[in-house]
Amino acid sequence: MQGKLIVLEGIEGCGKTTQLGYLHRWLRTQPLIQALRGQGQIGDIIITREPGGTPLGGELRQLLLTQTTTTAIAARTELLLYAADRAQHVEEVLSPALARGCLILCDRYVDSTVAYQGYGRGIDLTLIEQLNQIATGGLVPDLTLWLQLGATTGLARSRQRGSIDRMEQADVAFHQRVQQGFEALAAAHPQRIVPVAAAAPVTEVTQQIQTIVMQRLQRWYRPLSPVS
Amino acid sequence: MQGKLIVLEGIEGCGKTTQLGYLHRWLRTQPLIQALRGQGQIGDIIITREPGGTPLGGELRQLLLTQTTTTAIAARTELLLYAADRAQHVEEVLSPALARGCLILCDRYVDSTVAYQGYGRGIDLTLIEQLNQIATGGLVPDLTLWLQLGATTGLARSRQRGSIDRMEQADVAFHQRVQQGFEALAAAHPQRIVPVAAAAPVTEVTQQIQTIVMQRLQRWYRPLSPVS
Repeated sequence: MQGKLIVLEGIEGCGKTTQLGYLHRWLRTQPLIQALRGQGQIGDIIITREPGGTPLGGELRQLLLTQTTTTAIAARTELLLYAADRAQHVEEVLSPALARGCLILCDRYVDSTVAYQGYGRGIDLTLIEQLNQIATGGLVPDLTLWLQLGATTGLARSRQRGSIDRMEQADVAFHQRVQQGFEALAAAHPQRIVPVAAAAPVTEVTQQIQTIVMQRLQRWYRPLSPVS
Repeated sequence: MQGKLIVLEGIEGCGKTTQLGYLHRWLRTQPLIQALRGQGQIGDIIITREPGGTPLGGELRQLLLTQTTTTAIAARTELLLYAADRAQHVEEVLSPALARGCLILCDRYVDSTVAYQGYGRGIDLTLIEQLNQIATGGLVPDLTLWLQLGATTGLARSRQRGSIDRMEQADVAFHQRVQQGFEALAAAHPQRIVPVAAAAPVTEVTQQIQTIVMQRLQRWYRPLSPVS
């Protein structure tokens, strides 16, 4: 029994964390899921995130998102810390859960590193690909939902909710480059990355996500008997 | 004015931290050094270490050497955390100090990662070379003193001083593989890595180190007027 890895990606304020929660609750009520679980075709539906999806990762996330040291974290250091968080997450959470047949809903994964550190901070993309490969051991998501939103709207939303951490203090130009990174990734991996129009009202975004995920589930799994 | 990077390497209990302190104090009393400093040919003599040579690195060192999380740190995670520590150390300490002309005495550097993670834990050596390259940006020591000591003797010494951390709890076989790693490195880089017979009495080890370092200093620097 091999599970599936579904990732939500996008710039700050795109609503992915909220939508991940909605998706989690919605999936558990779906007859298809209930049938598949009853037949032992899938395991638990779990929510996780990067950075910070493990206890060690939580400590790294603290280091990354708050300025605890007197000097700035160097760009390459940041990249390596995200990679360390990811390696631990893959080893401790993702791989074992996939082996148990779980449906994993993950808040950010490899594409965020390409978009933020590569496009946003201008770190060499080949280097990032290398590190992503080292950290994941080659584990690629089965589906990535990219919540597409203009940089200005995203920043305005995250400022509104008052959660301005170190990342969000960066300027609009940075977030525009990040946005371009997600665009390039979506163009390069059209099968895996599906764009979601995240500027729409929340309920519509939820609806889009549900439709995409249900289509994939029906492609991935066949219940042993028809589901009403 | 470009400084020099001198690294001490070896297994636990080889005495490198003690010898680094002796070397630091001794260097400051040497007429050659005093002449070179007076002539502005070299800057300060500084001591630093990996992991933990920066405030951020100190926090990472804590994570690495103490088991604060409920689950084990994965091998690849450990490797990436050492690389992050190193990237920050190079950026924040080593590169600026070299640019100021400092003579840097560093407790462990890239070779420890090859020996411990590569030979000791069996992680792919090419991967480690890649990560060392990413972390250092290509910064290679000018001289590496390898304090050569049998694994059993080293472990017995570090147990005696009561400082058994996570690394030192590993078995003798592990430390023998680490020792083989240092041997292979020394064979591959005979110009850079100079072995020191560390099983000798402390004063003899100190003497060997002083001789090697003074020879290098005389090769690297020429005082503007003769030194008595």
